[in-house]
Amino acid sequence: MRYELYYWPSIQGRGEFVRLALEEADADYVDVARERGAGALTPFLEGKSAERGPYAAPFLKAGKLVIGQTSNILQWLAPRHGLVPKAEAARVWAHQLQLTIADWVDETHATHHPVGGAFYYEDQKPESLRSAGHFVGTRLPKFLGYFERHLARDKGGWLLGRGFSYPDLSLFQMVAGLRYAFPRAMARLEPKHPRLVALHDRVAARPRVAAYLASDRRIPFNQHGIFRHYPELDA
Amino acid sequence: MRYELYYWPSIQGRGEFVRLALEEADADYVDVARERGAGALTPFLEGKSAERGPYAAPFLKAGKLVIGQTSNILQWLAPRHGLVPKAEAARVWAHQLQLTIADWVDETHATHHPVGGAFYYEDQKPESLRSAGHFVGTRLPKFLGYFERHLARDKGGWLLGRGFSYPDLSLFQMVAGLRYAFPRAMARLEPKHPRLVALHDRVAARPRVAAYLASDRRIPFNQHGIFRHYPELDA
Repeated sequence: MRYELYYWPSIQGRGEFVRLALEEADADYVDVARERGAGALTPFLEGKSAERGPYAAPFLKAGKLVIGQTSNILQWLAPRHGLVPKAEAARVWAHQLQLTIADWVDETHATHHPVGGAFYYEDQKPESLRSAGHFVGTRLPKFLGYFERHLARDKGGWLLGRGFSYPDLSLFQMVAGLRYAFPRAMARLEPKHPRLVALHDRVAARPRVAAYLASDRRIPFNQHGIFRHYPELDA
Repeated sequence: MRYELYYWPSIQGRGEFVRLALEEADADYVDVARERGAGALTPFLEGKSAERGPYAAPFLKAGKLVIGQTSNILQWLAPRHGLVPKAEAARVWAHQLQLTIADWVDETHATHHPVGGAFYYEDQKPESLRSAGHFVGTRLPKFLGYFERHLARDKGGWLLGRGFSYPDLSLFQMVAGLRYAFPRAMARLEPKHPRLVALHDRVAARPRVAAYLASDRRIPFNQHGIFRHYPELDA
């Protein structure tokens, strides 16, 4: 089956977590809006195209099914492409980790948009300074420490231990994105989180991921996505 | 099996979405911190108690399994207690709706804590005024409209059509909480969303939910949870 991924064509954003899974799975997919423009999303988001339409992008069309919510898409894809073990306890844990990463994504986005997505960063700079200060000083170390602790506990180098799974891809993306957005903070924090850094490197070296990252399918980080580099926020 | 729910004992918060499901299911559970105090959560949150511990509350102990993330807990409970249909497409859709409600919860919380959970509301009042203005003016109508549209489409009165499912409980909780937090905005918006109001009333009238709401197990809304009534934010 050829999947259709619908996401904004000019950013990595939340869609990137799905792109990474599709690439690692070597799945047959088309990144619809990169071929036909962002207008391809409109009928779905306006509730005109699908009976059970998504609230927001990304969403994945798989035959008749239209699946929304990043973590939900990943949970659906993973067992079909060997990206999660079979045992239910492992799947529940993988999804829990993915949802925790989703919270981390939200908090990362809020560093430059604390007041709301409706306002430009330039219109919420003082608020962003406070929000980012709290993020870099407290939340970022807490999230990094949480995942580092689990990597230390479930030996094997992956979040689930010896078995590679979809949250590993998402955790790679967090480290990559945070390095782009907060290079100074990450340079300071990374030495304390060697297993996270190693996981990032191991994911980046997986052949399909490496090929994807080197291709023009990988949109570069920029100032419109979740991870944005504003030096004044990187204390 | 007797479940153990771990959540802060003095607020509804995110734990309430789980409490409602446990109550509707007539499940055997203990709300641990309401019996033993909030300290019961500490070993889990510090990573000392469970091999695969949660990042935050709520979490549910079911035998040896410790399940974190509200939506993940509900997804695990639902098929065991008849709170979701058997068909996979229905389960994917139910979870997608639940995750959209989780986003709505986050945005609701951000109306009084836009800069971060580390600061008191009193220390982020101007930012809250902007954030809440955007929420009440734009986001709230969009979320309400989204769910109203699906209720109109999937006739039967429940989100999945004729089959009652766990996101119905959560949607009830959203309407109840938003009425508490934003009574003026909701009074204005509710007439445009009659199916949502009807769903709220139908959930509240379900015998087990009604008994729960009338009991002292239901913690009243207060100024410490997700839904807080600050009249200045209710424009």
